Amino acid sequence: MSAFSFNKLVIFGVGLIGGSLALALRERGAGGTVVGVGRQAGSVERALELRVIDAAATLDDDAALAGALDRADVVLLAAPVAQTRALLERIVPFLDAATIVTDAGSTKGDVIDAARAALGARIAQFVPGHPIAGRESSGVDAALPGLYVDRNVVLCPLPENAPQSVERIAAMWRATGARVGQMPAGQHDRVFASVSHLPHVLSYALVEQILASPDAELKFSFAAGGFRDFTRIAASSPEMWRDICVANRAALLAELDAYTDVLARLRAAIDAGDGAALEAVFARSRAARTAWQERGGKPSAAADTPE
Amino acid sequence: MSAFSFNKLVIFGVGLIGGSLALALRERGAGGTVVGVGRQAGSVERALELRVIDAAATLDDDAALAGALDRADVVLLAAPVAQTRALLERIVPFLDAATIVTDAGSTKGDVIDAARAALGARIAQFVPGHPIAGRESSGVDAALPGLYVDRNVVLCPLPENAPQSVERIAAMWRATGARVGQMPAGQHDRVFASVSHLPHVLSYALVEQILASPDAELKFSFAAGGFRDFTRIAASSPEMWRDICVANRAALLAELDAYTDVLARLRAAIDAGDGAALEAVFARSRAARTAWQERGGKPSAAADTPE
Repeated sequence: MSAFSFNKLVIFGVGLIGGSLALALRERGAGGTVVGVGRQAGSVERALELRVIDAAATLDDDAALAGALDRADVVLLAAPVAQTRALLERIVPFLDAATIVTDAGSTKGDVIDAARAALGARIAQFVPGHPIAGRESSGVDAALPGLYVDRNVVLCPLPENAPQSVERIAAMWRATGARVGQMPAGQHDRVFASVSHLPHVLSYALVEQILASPDAELKFSFAAGGFRDFTRIAASSPEMWRDICVANRAALLAELDAYTDVLARLRAAIDAGDGAALEAVFARSRAARTAWQERGGKPSAAADTPE
Repeated sequence: MSAFSFNKLVIFGVGLIGGSLALALRERGAGGTVVGVGRQAGSVERALELRVIDAAATLDDDAALAGALDRADVVLLAAPVAQTRALLERIVPFLDAATIVTDAGSTKGDVIDAARAALGARIAQFVPGHPIAGRESSGVDAALPGLYVDRNVVLCPLPENAPQSVERIAAMWRATGARVGQMPAGQHDRVFASVSHLPHVLSYALVEQILASPDAELKFSFAAGGFRDFTRIAASSPEMWRDICVANRAALLAELDAYTDVLARLRAAIDAGDGAALEAVFARSRAARTAWQERGGKPSAAADTPE
């Protein structure tokens, strides 16, 4: 059926992202055993109950961890990115030489730094990745076999990676129905700072500003459709977005500063009553936004946040 | 049926807003003749064809305009706000003393200034209003009898208005299914600068910033659900939003400056890697956004922009 098959896949953090990968591979007949590893027994028990995984282990049990990693083809890290270094340090003593490790983090530069620190000379085994998919709900109960269909997955291969390792991870994601692309980690972090991380900060900031104003209740009571769409991402996980802002600090600050410059330009035009300047910007933006939508700019409403 | 009835309603600008009022009043059995007035014969002809209005006139025909306004109960201005003064100057020579004039503009301070300049001593006949409803499509073909059901309409009565004039306009909007509230024009303009005008500027600014960056195409190609929601309002009419920004300049600048302050605070927290400060803002925003949504924060997807 699928161009990807495996004997054993080990997922650290069986939530929406890891769980959906497991379900997708099973549905596509990629075969093999899926082992879930969690910090608490509770989280993996639920994944077992839902038959998202075939076996489970917890991080604090050396023997179980060794057993889980023994002869694994692929390890996916799908826990919060801030845990990457600690997780890899825990994994590396039990890691087979033939196992490829990949991740699903929203930022790549910091993940690669953490991986280099934890894996040292074995860094070639780590292929950094980022599936661009999510839903408003999270956790393994929200996992769907179709989550990655027609979604983008970005790989950011390292110079040390063997081409066949990168191809194996690409094949795994393609087997879920995703489109797989590659770019350098620095470029990845700039692109997502711009189209995902910055909009989240801007959206949170609007709600914060209204909250801090004296007539907050009145404002909320008259907020309508534009506000609703603009602030939908302000309902995203504060912990996750805190981590992303810190992890992708440099790229995010660069985008935020460029944005502030555009805003200052618009402020000057509003202040001067320069309707022509405003209309030029608004018309250009509308044309670009409309063209993006018409090119099919991710119209799926099911797979929404986080990115 | 309805607590509002009329003999003749005259609508200047029979597009989405004016057309939907006409359809709603007919559906609710409020009776009476609806006359549409347009700048070109073409725009009112389409409204006649669709039976949204019963009769039509064009602005440049004195006799037709006099006939249209003769013994009118209510006149609604539903043309772009920048045309308010010129329209009222055109109307006033033919305006009966008993006719109440109202409008549907998104800004109120500038509309009131224009009305005072055009109507002079007859300003008591003008009751400023703002129905908070819209759709992504515009024009009379997009008009719907249910557009105003459960939507807010804000009236900003003038000290000169007779209470019964204000109540008559309130009753007209209630007959469409809308909730009618009142607030002073200055407060109206601050509230909508905050929850509607500023988000539009911020959304246009993000698309403009991406367009101006060297890797714009790559960024657009990886933009996903968060970008889609955040920038949906950047597809709004550039002319309309240009006019609103200029008309509501003072209130919009105040909100924009307060927003820029919040953004500077978040920038400092990102720069310092102060995760706790970021999480506090994000958590507060999420709680407020979630509470707003749960209170029923205008969940209708049909009535979207403009506001």
